[in-house]
Amino acid sequence: MKLVEWLAKSVTDDARALRWFEEAGADDRIARAFKELLAGYELEPSTILKTTRMLEAGERPGRVEVKDIGFHSLCAHHFLPFFGEVDVAYEPGDRILGLGKLPRLVDAYARRFQIQEDLVREVAQEMMESGHARGVRVRSRARHLCMCSRGPSSESAITHTEFALGTLAQD
Amino acid sequence: MKLVEWLAKSVTDDARALRWFEEAGADDRIARAFKELLAGYELEPSTILKTTRMLEAGERPGRVEVKDIGFHSLCAHHFLPFFGEVDVAYEPGDRILGLGKLPRLVDAYARRFQIQEDLVREVAQEMMESGHARGVRVRSRARHLCMCSRGPSSESAITHTEFALGTLAQD
Amino acid sequence: MKLVEWLAKSVTDDARALRWFEEAGADDRIARAFKELLAGYELEPSTILKTTRMLEAGERPGRVEVKDIGFHSLCAHHFLPFFGEVDVAYEPGDRILGLGKLPRLVDAYARRFQIQEDLVREVAQEMMESGHARGVRVRSRARHLCMCSRGPSSESAITHTEFALGTLAQD
Amino acid sequence: MKLVEWLAKSVTDDARALRWFEEAGADDRIARAFKELLAGYELEPSTILKTTRMLEAGERPGRVEVKDIGFHSLCAHHFLPFFGEVDVAYEPGDRILGLGKLPRLVDAYARRFQIQEDLVREVAQEMMESGHARGVRVRSRARHLCMCSRGPSSESAITHTEFALGTLAQD
Amino acid sequence: MKLVEWLAKSVTDDARALRWFEEAGADDRIARAFKELLAGYELEPSTILKTTRMLEAGERPGRVEVKDIGFHSLCAHHFLPFFGEVDVAYEPGDRILGLGKLPRLVDAYARRFQIQEDLVREVAQEMMESGHARGVRVRSRARHLCMCSRGPSSESAITHTEFALGTLAQD
Amino acid sequence: MKLVEWLAKSVTDDARALRWFEEAGADDRIARAFKELLAGYELEPSTILKTTRMLEAGERPGRVEVKDIGFHSLCAHHFLPFFGEVDVAYEPGDRILGLGKLPRLVDAYARRFQIQEDLVREVAQEMMESGHARGVRVRSRARHLCMCSRGPSSESAITHTEFALGTLAQD
Amino acid sequence: MKLVEWLAKSVTDDARALRWFEEAGADDRIARAFKELLAGYELEPSTILKTTRMLEAGERPGRVEVKDIGFHSLCAHHFLPFFGEVDVAYEPGDRILGLGKLPRLVDAYARRFQIQEDLVREVAQEMMESGHARGVRVRSRARHLCMCSRGPSSESAITHTEFALGTLAQD
Amino acid sequence: MKLVEWLAKSVTDDARALRWFEEAGADDRIARAFKELLAGYELEPSTILKTTRMLEAGERPGRVEVKDIGFHSLCAHHFLPFFGEVDVAYEPGDRILGLGKLPRLVDAYARRFQIQEDLVREVAQEMMESGHARGVRVRSRARHLCMCSRGPSSESAITHTEFALGTLAQD
Amino acid sequence: MKLVEWLAKSVTDDARALRWFEEAGADDRIARAFKELLAGYELEPSTILKTTRMLEAGERPGRVEVKDIGFHSLCAHHFLPFFGEVDVAYEPGDRILGLGKLPRLVDAYARRFQIQEDLVREVAQEMMESGHARGVRVRSRARHLCMCSRGPSSESAITHTEFALGTLAQD
Amino acid sequence: MKLVEWLAKSVTDDARALRWFEEAGADDRIARAFKELLAGYELEPSTILKTTRMLEAGERPGRVEVKDIGFHSLCAHHFLPFFGEVDVAYEPGDRILGLGKLPRLVDAYARRFQIQEDLVREVAQEMMESGHARGVRVRSRARHLCMCSRGPSSESAITHTEFALGTLAQD
Repeated sequence: MKLVEWLAKSVTDDARALRWFEEAGADDRIARAFKELLAGYELEPSTILKTTRMLEAGERPGRVEVKDIGFHSLCAHHFLPFFGEVDVAYEPGDRILGLGKLPRLVDAYARRFQIQEDLVREVAQEMMESGHARGVRVRSRARHLCMCSRGPSSESAITHTEFALGTLAQD
Repeated sequence: MKLVEWLAKSVTDDARALRWFEEAGADDRIARAFKELLAGYELEPSTILKTTRMLEAGERPGRVEVKDIGFHSLCAHHFLPFFGEVDVAYEPGDRILGLGKLPRLVDAYARRFQIQEDLVREVAQEMMESGHARGVRVRSRARHLCMCSRGPSSESAITHTEFALGTLAQD
Repeated sequence: MKLVEWLAKSVTDDARALRWFEEAGADDRIARAFKELLAGYELEPSTILKTTRMLEAGERPGRVEVKDIGFHSLCAHHFLPFFGEVDVAYEPGDRILGLGKLPRLVDAYARRFQIQEDLVREVAQEMMESGHARGVRVRSRARHLCMCSRGPSSESAITHTEFALGTLAQD
Repeated sequence: MKLVEWLAKSVTDDARALRWFEEAGADDRIARAFKELLAGYELEPSTILKTTRMLEAGERPGRVEVKDIGFHSLCAHHFLPFFGEVDVAYEPGDRILGLGKLPRLVDAYARRFQIQEDLVREVAQEMMESGHARGVRVRSRARHLCMCSRGPSSESAITHTEFALGTLAQD
Repeated sequence: MKLVEWLAKSVTDDARALRWFEEAGADDRIARAFKELLAGYELEPSTILKTTRMLEAGERPGRVEVKDIGFHSLCAHHFLPFFGEVDVAYEPGDRILGLGKLPRLVDAYARRFQIQEDLVREVAQEMMESGHARGVRVRSRARHLCMCSRGPSSESAITHTEFALGTLAQD
Repeated sequence: MKLVEWLAKSVTDDARALRWFEEAGADDRIARAFKELLAGYELEPSTILKTTRMLEAGERPGRVEVKDIGFHSLCAHHFLPFFGEVDVAYEPGDRILGLGKLPRLVDAYARRFQIQEDLVREVAQEMMESGHARGVRVRSRARHLCMCSRGPSSESAITHTEFALGTLAQD
Repeated sequence: MKLVEWLAKSVTDDARALRWFEEAGADDRIARAFKELLAGYELEPSTILKTTRMLEAGERPGRVEVKDIGFHSLCAHHFLPFFGEVDVAYEPGDRILGLGKLPRLVDAYARRFQIQEDLVREVAQEMMESGHARGVRVRSRARHLCMCSRGPSSESAITHTEFALGTLAQD
Repeated sequence: MKLVEWLAKSVTDDARALRWFEEAGADDRIARAFKELLAGYELEPSTILKTTRMLEAGERPGRVEVKDIGFHSLCAHHFLPFFGEVDVAYEPGDRILGLGKLPRLVDAYARRFQIQEDLVREVAQEMMESGHARGVRVRSRARHLCMCSRGPSSESAITHTEFALGTLAQD
Repeated sequence: MKLVEWLAKSVTDDARALRWFEEAGADDRIARAFKELLAGYELEPSTILKTTRMLEAGERPGRVEVKDIGFHSLCAHHFLPFFGEVDVAYEPGDRILGLGKLPRLVDAYARRFQIQEDLVREVAQEMMESGHARGVRVRSRARHLCMCSRGPSSESAITHTEFALGTLAQD
Repeated sequence: MKLVEWLAKSVTDDARALRWFEEAGADDRIARAFKELLAGYELEPSTILKTTRMLEAGERPGRVEVKDIGFHSLCAHHFLPFFGEVDVAYEPGDRILGLGKLPRLVDAYARRFQIQEDLVREVAQEMMESGHARGVRVRSRARHLCMCSRGPSSESAITHTEFALGTLAQD
């Protein structure tokens, strides 16, 4: 079964559209692209975060934020990409986390079928659980192609979501 | 009855102005343009919002804001366009709403004869009622052609309106 | 005869639309706004340009350009505004022209039903004829509301037109 | 046959991915989104351009360019969106074309499976043929999601293509 | 009596300066320019504001701000222009005011001999009195030519003034 | 004779305008401000330029340009300020000129009643004559208050003038 | 005694350095430049501020701030310039001060050997004392050449100082 | 023992890589570069800060912040550079510190193997101890090459750390 | 043999530096990072480029440029990173190349020990040879950490290199 | 002999100025700062440039430019700093030069008493002579404190100089 069959049955039977996907190798090439976009399912987020060093007893932690982490995701409703940036701020609990692991954590949750409200929540929860943070705040900004391509009022729209836990939650 | 008749009687009888609208098809072409600008009257706003998923019991909602939603509207006082952007922020009540529906809701209220103060209020009320939000804040920024074209002090002016309800109202 | 009659017959019979224009004074208020937008028909462009001083015999003229002259016009096809900026560059013939008159010349041609291609041509021709220029180049940039409000691909589009004559024409 | 079958067979069998598309209505919703993205196949580009007015005998045409026309397209190789802006510049032949039709022409060719090199060529050819232009130059700038999401060196890359014919070709 | 007489007696007797104003018509041309800059004295500010609609009983008003209203004024101390922008924010009392009237109100007070501290106070007071606002905050930013042209430390200086009353006053 | 007499006779007899200038010292304060704005008449431009060093025999000169020299001037037609920046580029003849003297030369011609077309010409001619340049190109950009304050189309306009001589003239 | 003697004895005996200052007039030229940079010592700051008008009894003062006042000063430790901008905000006591005098006050304290921490304190104290302000806040931003020219980490550094008194002090 | 030996054994045995480091002098050249990047170990931070002047008894200190101090450091985990800017704000205790010493202090801690969380903490502690500050807040922003070069989601990421003590700590 | 041995022998014997690399796993972690930065040696550039489609006989090719392709490389002289962007413009020969392969080609040459002058030359040559281009122009912009971290004059420096072949070479 | 003696004799005898330089150590501190600013005299520019590699026979060189090299210099006429950026573009002759040496060459000529016209000429000549370039073009942009601090027209002025030799000279 090939994608072009679904396309022909459900979307368009225009020969100019279908011909691109009838050549040998087309279906594999597309599947490879989607496998990369969905590679997050292969990762176990709880094993990503690493410890740079443990805080010493009574050591006062400062604040850390990794901003503008790029991400690409697939909208779970429309099978179309959405993409943008995530900011992860946290207050260390008993350890300082390896900075390079924060983008990997974002990537692990983004490379799935997602909704943007859940992306920030899932990253925040993982920072608390396997990162032992005292507090975390995750923000995202994204452009949704399912939205942008479908009407003049949506063309310029940017969606922002935010989720905070622990000492960085504002309630 | 044609628009050119009103024009000739009420605005100008200059032949160089009127000739544009005397050709066959001119009145229809203009009517079509205005029908598009007023297409909001055909929509029932209370049916636009969709649910992405219901919150689980005790689930803590984050914050969501769709910013820079473009809109075009017609000034109810001067029959001239005003246009700009709307930001819709909300705190979910019992459900997460489909992001792509927020620009449609703005569009449904903007494509009418409007005043900018009412546009933000009507969007906010609909988010509470059919969107079951716990709180909502709607902001808009617009340039009014009835204002811009009529004097040097108005040329650069941008009008901002804001309306908030529920947990996002600041009182 | 009132605008609301045309509206009801040709565009929409929605009572929420029509009520705005049934109150006393509404039709007059709109007519006044359109009279301002069409005030260019009252002006005779050939009398606008003034001489600051005549060049002396053999005096070499420099180059002059008034950039970013704001304008508002009405699209002759859709009865909707378009607006933007005009740049007028000229090389003096026998006289230096009063700078403040160039925006007035643009205004005289813009406050009419126009097409943007003709706006730059008409200003350029007047600069040659009553301004006695050796050369002129007129450029404009505009946003058309008939275009912006009608589809996602047009939302961000800016139209540029240019017309040059005499020593500043590039052929 | 449903998209989820292809997904399960060719891309991933992770239940967390597949569940989104097993609910009733999911396949239809996705098909609708792709139909919109491929709506260009329904349009006959040679009928889109309209004449604003014919040039008079001996009338010298100026230059016209509609810049920053937004577009969304689907990459014919990877089934993923690419999007950006197109600029269409032309020198009129025997007629001035309706400005609002240029974004529609771009849209008719963009809402197909495309490669960005062909998009500019096809728009340029149509401007010459049904638009009777003396010359045309079409430029595009786009971000390709098939490129952006697959490696650090591609994240920021923007692809530019250009095609010119007639008096605006530089050879 | 002519301006050139004052100039010759009080400022400079350099013939290169005076000759500009000895030609017929010079004095009238200057007087016309200053009459426009002082046209605010002809207006009665208390009659400018108009009502768009009355609030309904118990209707909760949102917030409205017209920003970046351009103005030009004459410094009451040095007879030289100052110019910039005014922002007018207000909270409606019993009525929503016509947006286009706010720039006219600013203009009525700016086109006088003024000091920038009084400009914001006078606009604010009029918004409360004839506009029946519950609160108002007026801010301005301006460049003063009496300041800019007289020393290197003043060249880049921008003066900000602010005046607030009612619910928008911060005390 | 005082300025207030001219104001009362030619511009306005509004007491709120006149009172500012009836107090002792007002006329002197204004005269001092205008004396500073017209201080250029006191300077002899041909004595301003200084030599940093003479070129050696056969020494090849490079190119020098002092950009963004601020200036304030008074419009010779309307008695109102215009101001902006001048760029002076020159190719040395037999000497390299002191850089700090170029702004002084601009100042000497700007602090007069001027027209912007003459300002660039006069600076260019002086650079050739007392500066012994092989070529010079002078450009200016300015905002004219006589223009800005008098209509919406002029509010944003910037006037550019340019004059070149010798090896830097393009003909 | 000449500067070149100090230079030769304390800094460098390189003939290529010293020759510039051995010519007649060099020492005077430098002394003149430094006299200008130190001209603040000639001014009595307590006499600079002027009153625009006295507040009326019970008149409520607004807020006034002159921002981005340029200054140049000499570092009291290294004999090298530092320069930047000062913002002066004040709340009037019994009088509104002439705006043009605030840059002069800044200039009077800047054109001395200074340290940037004292510059803001001295301006603030003078605003309270001879300006009779109820409160004042002075901020400065500066680049120090003694810092910029001496190491890669200092190249981009900008120093900010702030001093507040009376109602604008935050304690 | 040379770096190329480690490279060949642990990273790559590709001859095209190794040949660069086999020439005489290569190892020394690299060692010199790393010595510069690690020069902070040679410095004793507690001796860097200098006193500009002691506060007088009862003197009220203002606020001082040196912003955008550039730094380059080596990531203690990956042997690769990270670099960015540090802002140091402090409230003087009994003395005003020499501004030029703050960048030197940052440099002393940055030119070591570091983690960005410790960099801000160490600078803050030294400001309190040898700088006798009443309060200090140190912020940094940095790009990590160990992060940037290893995946698309990290390419644009900027890491922010902050540490505050004394009166500037927010608890 | 470990990197820390080289460090101790050739760069520094400071215990605070060495301790980071004495823990188990440190050497492996660094080697992994460098292996990624040098992964280009594993790739055969001549196999990277793919054909999207062959040109038809007589088909006129347009122009294609992929701009702002991010890259990270290691300076072959100092063992330190340099990074920036590459632009690849080409004129197709007999085929249109897959756009996504151009960033991969850049990556294959960048992830090596390089000098920036060779990077653009090698990419250009490969585009001609295995890409069958008629012409190619490759430009790069980069920041070199070996340069930035070693003196104030280099902090802000950006190095540009360019190499062109075939129809896009300018000679 | 101390700097304060020259200051007292030639510039000012104000005790508030002189006291800063009477304390022990002040003269030494200033001399050290000036020694750094004049360190270029200690360097022999002809030994700075290094060869990265020799071109192979018949190898076609590309183009190289190091832009925005920061510099600080002392004005040979006024003993005051000027500073800005230099761009050095060159076409290799028989060798590719080490990129890091170009900022050092600029530094060697800038850290002297200079005039900006000579700075670019001297760097260009050295690139030809010891760098064996086929062509070179050196541009600079600078702010002169001797100019900036002495009048409103000079405050914003930036001076540009350029010098080219060999294949990059435009004659």
